[in-house]
Amino acid sequence: MSTAKKRVIVDVDVGTDDALALLVLLHAEKNGLAKIEAINCSKGNASLKDVTRNVIRLLEILDRTDIPVYKGATEALIPPETPIPQFHGKDGFGDLEHEKEPDVSIVQKDSASVAMRNLVINNPGQISLICIGPLTNIALTMKLFDDFAPNIKEIFIMGGNYAATGNVTETAEFNFYVDPEAAYIVLENAQCPLTIATWETCLNTHLTFRWRFDVLGSKNTPIMELLNRAEKSIYPEKENPPDSIWYPCDALCVIAMLYPNESITKQSKHNATVELHGSKTRGQIVLDHLKQKDPNVTMLEKINDEFIKEILLQAT
Amino acid sequence: MSTAKKRVIVDVDVGTDDALALLVLLHAEKNGLAKIEAINCSKGNASLKDVTRNVIRLLEILDRTDIPVYKGATEALIPPETPIPQFHGKDGFGDLEHEKEPDVSIVQKDSASVAMRNLVINNPGQISLICIGPLTNIALTMKLFDDFAPNIKEIFIMGGNYAATGNVTETAEFNFYVDPEAAYIVLENAQCPLTIATWETCLNTHLTFRWRFDVLGSKNTPIMELLNRAEKSIYPEKENPPDSIWYPCDALCVIAMLYPNESITKQSKHNATVELHGSKTRGQIVLDHLKQKDPNVTMLEKINDEFIKEILLQAT
Amino acid sequence: MSTAKKRVIVDVDVGTDDALALLVLLHAEKNGLAKIEAINCSKGNASLKDVTRNVIRLLEILDRTDIPVYKGATEALIPPETPIPQFHGKDGFGDLEHEKEPDVSIVQKDSASVAMRNLVINNPGQISLICIGPLTNIALTMKLFDDFAPNIKEIFIMGGNYAATGNVTETAEFNFYVDPEAAYIVLENAQCPLTIATWETCLNTHLTFRWRFDVLGSKNTPIMELLNRAEKSIYPEKENPPDSIWYPCDALCVIAMLYPNESITKQSKHNATVELHGSKTRGQIVLDHLKQKDPNVTMLEKINDEFIKEILLQAT
Amino acid sequence: MSTAKKRVIVDVDVGTDDALALLVLLHAEKNGLAKIEAINCSKGNASLKDVTRNVIRLLEILDRTDIPVYKGATEALIPPETPIPQFHGKDGFGDLEHEKEPDVSIVQKDSASVAMRNLVINNPGQISLICIGPLTNIALTMKLFDDFAPNIKEIFIMGGNYAATGNVTETAEFNFYVDPEAAYIVLENAQCPLTIATWETCLNTHLTFRWRFDVLGSKNTPIMELLNRAEKSIYPEKENPPDSIWYPCDALCVIAMLYPNESITKQSKHNATVELHGSKTRGQIVLDHLKQKDPNVTMLEKINDEFIKEILLQAT
Ligand SMILES: [Ca+2]
Ligand SMILES: [Ca+2]
Ligand SMILES: [Ca+2]
Ligand SMILES: [Ca+2]
Repeated sequence: MSTAKKRVIVDVDVGTDDALALLVLLHAEKNGLAKIEAINCSKGNASLKDVTRNVIRLLEILDRTDIPVYKGATEALIPPETPIPQFHGKDGFGDLEHEKEPDVSIVQKDSASVAMRNLVINNPGQISLICIGPLTNIALTMKLFDDFAPNIKEIFIMGGNYAATGNVTETAEFNFYVDPEAAYIVLENAQCPLTIATWETCLNTHLTFRWRFDVLGSKNTPIMELLNRAEKSIYPEKENPPDSIWYPCDALCVIAMLYPNESITKQSKHNATVELHGSKTRGQIVLDHLKQKDPNVTMLEKINDEFIKEILLQAT
Repeated sequence: MSTAKKRVIVDVDVGTDDALALLVLLHAEKNGLAKIEAINCSKGNASLKDVTRNVIRLLEILDRTDIPVYKGATEALIPPETPIPQFHGKDGFGDLEHEKEPDVSIVQKDSASVAMRNLVINNPGQISLICIGPLTNIALTMKLFDDFAPNIKEIFIMGGNYAATGNVTETAEFNFYVDPEAAYIVLENAQCPLTIATWETCLNTHLTFRWRFDVLGSKNTPIMELLNRAEKSIYPEKENPPDSIWYPCDALCVIAMLYPNESITKQSKHNATVELHGSKTRGQIVLDHLKQKDPNVTMLEKINDEFIKEILLQAT
Repeated sequence: MSTAKKRVIVDVDVGTDDALALLVLLHAEKNGLAKIEAINCSKGNASLKDVTRNVIRLLEILDRTDIPVYKGATEALIPPETPIPQFHGKDGFGDLEHEKEPDVSIVQKDSASVAMRNLVINNPGQISLICIGPLTNIALTMKLFDDFAPNIKEIFIMGGNYAATGNVTETAEFNFYVDPEAAYIVLENAQCPLTIATWETCLNTHLTFRWRFDVLGSKNTPIMELLNRAEKSIYPEKENPPDSIWYPCDALCVIAMLYPNESITKQSKHNATVELHGSKTRGQIVLDHLKQKDPNVTMLEKINDEFIKEILLQAT
Repeated sequence: MSTAKKRVIVDVDVGTDDALALLVLLHAEKNGLAKIEAINCSKGNASLKDVTRNVIRLLEILDRTDIPVYKGATEALIPPETPIPQFHGKDGFGDLEHEKEPDVSIVQKDSASVAMRNLVINNPGQISLICIGPLTNIALTMKLFDDFAPNIKEIFIMGGNYAATGNVTETAEFNFYVDPEAAYIVLENAQCPLTIATWETCLNTHLTFRWRFDVLGSKNTPIMELLNRAEKSIYPEKENPPDSIWYPCDALCVIAMLYPNESITKQSKHNATVELHGSKTRGQIVLDHLKQKDPNVTMLEKINDEFIKEILLQAT
């Protein structure tokens, strides 16, 4: 296993796969592999308010409200003019009934951007960003503060695609489509290693709903009880029979960041940017297939299924 | 004349017409009509560094370095992929030689966005914004801080167009073309009265270069001496014969804001947004000619030439 | 009045204003000012089938079925992905009940493109095109036959705009929006004088519905009886009170072509092309306000209201 | 081998790989597998004039000037605003010196569109189209003649992509990029089976330049002598070392059409259209990854390398 402890800021739009990703991070923290410096909330799978509530509920269950939680931007830079399908329920977490309301008063007063910038410039070259929602917060911070991008250690992103495979439009992945300008800004302005787990990366995994509910779901922990209820609501069995594939996208991205040697079985370097102007391709990643520009991203292509299972079983 | 004292933040990309606009504001301040709370520097006619130097040089000459100066964003949200013509020289001010370097150490430490937001939320409904450069700073602040837009008193903008007349591309005006996404964001997110002096507004004025240099330029003040040198460098007489028209766009916008009754002779209300995606129309304002949406802007159409002359003669 | 007899092909998408335009042409033919060589039918205000029926019905009433009628393209090059409002009823002519079905068997066997090209190349420099529907047929013919464009005498178009004023979208006029690629092709490939009566040209006229129905409509002719019924169906009085403005766009264009000296009171030359790619500006005319390209069109700006009335009263 | 004799119209922009494709067709004709009804010339790898000369030169060498040759459109519907790289030399055939000028007087008088339409409607359901250049001619004919598309038997196209891999821009393949509107029109309007050999299909083959020049090139025929000279000019050895891959794209498409069972090893059905409006993706094929629309194309994914070699060796 990797040995250097990673200091991470994680930008989330929770989302049940964000929740799993956080569990993987917290598990790594227990094992000395990571330290979660901050959690930024980002509009995406749900409104900023719901994302914030979802994050705090998770931290309360896990007894980790010591981790600072920040609010990011309420809206994308240029929000889509027509509504986007909500994959994770209206509240981003299966619209479950809960016994008690999370205590949102613990949210930090500083905005995510200001806090993230301060953390990065006070720890130059030390902080890894893990971005598993739309990239609004990262983009705004890059544009506002010139000293932010040069001092980031590395960026991992779940989002986009490398072969024009879409999941929310024909050619665009959800996180990139929600805020294409932000994705463009991050790809153009990053000055550190930038690694992307794309929608095709997820499509190249093969974890079944059977494994999800019968094996992983059989773990008898409070958090798994919550995740089971949420994902059974989000993925009704009729539409997702046991042998169909379950895509815990955000968790895959975090696993790849924490355990690159064990998990990544295929990757490649490319120059990548984002189409902002197409009528059918807005939000699609554009790779420079002419090889005229220097690579700026590493695209993860395949992640080891068995290793993913192993980590998810440990982390939940 | 108007009697309420306006408290203003002015966002500039100086630019000789920004300089004139500042002179008009300072003159109004002397007369108790305005108070300049802050000057934000914005990339546009020159780099952020040069804009900042140009602003401080002006304030030094005018002995008004007491006004706080803030640095805004270094680049537009999505900068043009091909370079933009520089109308005002490489340094935005005619590339003159100067005896001494302005003291940029007086620039405030806070970023323009953070400071502007604090000023606005601490004085709700009290602060007018005058935007005479690209709208990057205003847009970033709107996206970052939800409490910013609802607490602005009013916004005046120099930029855009209402009949697709361009001055930097066929259909786009400079300030809007430099950062179309920022212009879009401001028009979509403003919650206060929003007034725009467009490129057509300027084209509807008729001040000649003869008047500029022979009448206005004959004033014997240090600031006019500087402006004469700068504008003679920017507008060589060969290309701008005495009877051709001189467009002090930013000053027109400020005059309209300070003296609406005396200066504005025609205006109209519209729903306006910005084309972001055209191959020939990126940055053009789009008016809702179908009248299906509520008006969100007041377009200034004509400003009184004689009143402009009167104010400029007083202010310089 | 002009004395040279114009030989014209008229491309229509009838439409009641197309009908009036045809009446003006037929009136000029009686007076020796014009000869109608062919009528091309074009999809636009109605389907190609309905347009063809509408044309033949008119010719039957007027006893002019000697004029050859051709069928053009069934669809625009790239039809709009969402339906377009039908201004002239579903059949393009007020959805009236008729006693007898027009005899569509008189339609020529050749396609409009092939026939139009043959007529033009066999009479080089002799044929004027009047285009008062979408430009699909003209564009297809230009692309198919290299010898077509160089042999046209002149082209008059009703369509587009010069100040981004839309009537079907916010920024696009109906004829140009229905087939923007065709409009682009015609503007790029025309080699003869090209004159455009735009939507703004129409907006600069001031004929009231009162004049339309009380004066013009009081004429006691079979064709006026039909037009009265059709336009009363299309323009219900509730939505079009007597003092509101009636726009017989296509007729204006034909009047300007036939009687330029008497009718045109303002015009200007421009380089014009068409935006194909905007999300809000598709189909808008783009003028080269930077004056970097040679003029390729004459834009009609104002047409004399009194002269229009005079001709319409004579022609109906 | 397939036994039904295919009657084909082939639309070419010769191009050395068009030449090879023609050789494969002519070889099949000898074996009773195909009959070439017409060759349409299309602007693409060279001007229409040069393409026509290249085609006739080939037919002269092969003593097959009996096959009717037609001239198509001189230009794409909306030609690219910036020039496109010429892969095959200025004349599309390596800019060789030739002893004698081909006799272009044998070109048919009818335009390609008119002749192709007549052939198709007179032989309903009998004619296969093979399109190995830009799709301008097919699109124009579909738009002009409503009876054309319903009477075609099948269409094979070399062009486009299924994973956004570009060869002339970052995301667009040459034939589709040269005339994206034509490609869009063909994909939207085809009513028969439509099969596409894309740029990725070619990238999935592995014929080396070593095989091309040392094995295939060693054949001692007049046509191979010409092709060797042309391809040695187009592919200088320095830039194309022996072990690099040679892509005879058009020939692959024809082989797949003539010998589907023997050659095609992977294919899939999709709904496909073309992006017309992106700033980086114009001309890219867009697949409906959301599976909301019915399939309209079969994408060839892999073609058997050994079978390609076998056919090329027989045909040259
Ligand atoms: Ca997420
Ligand atoms: Ca300015
Ligand atoms: Ca019409
Ligand atoms: Ca070819």
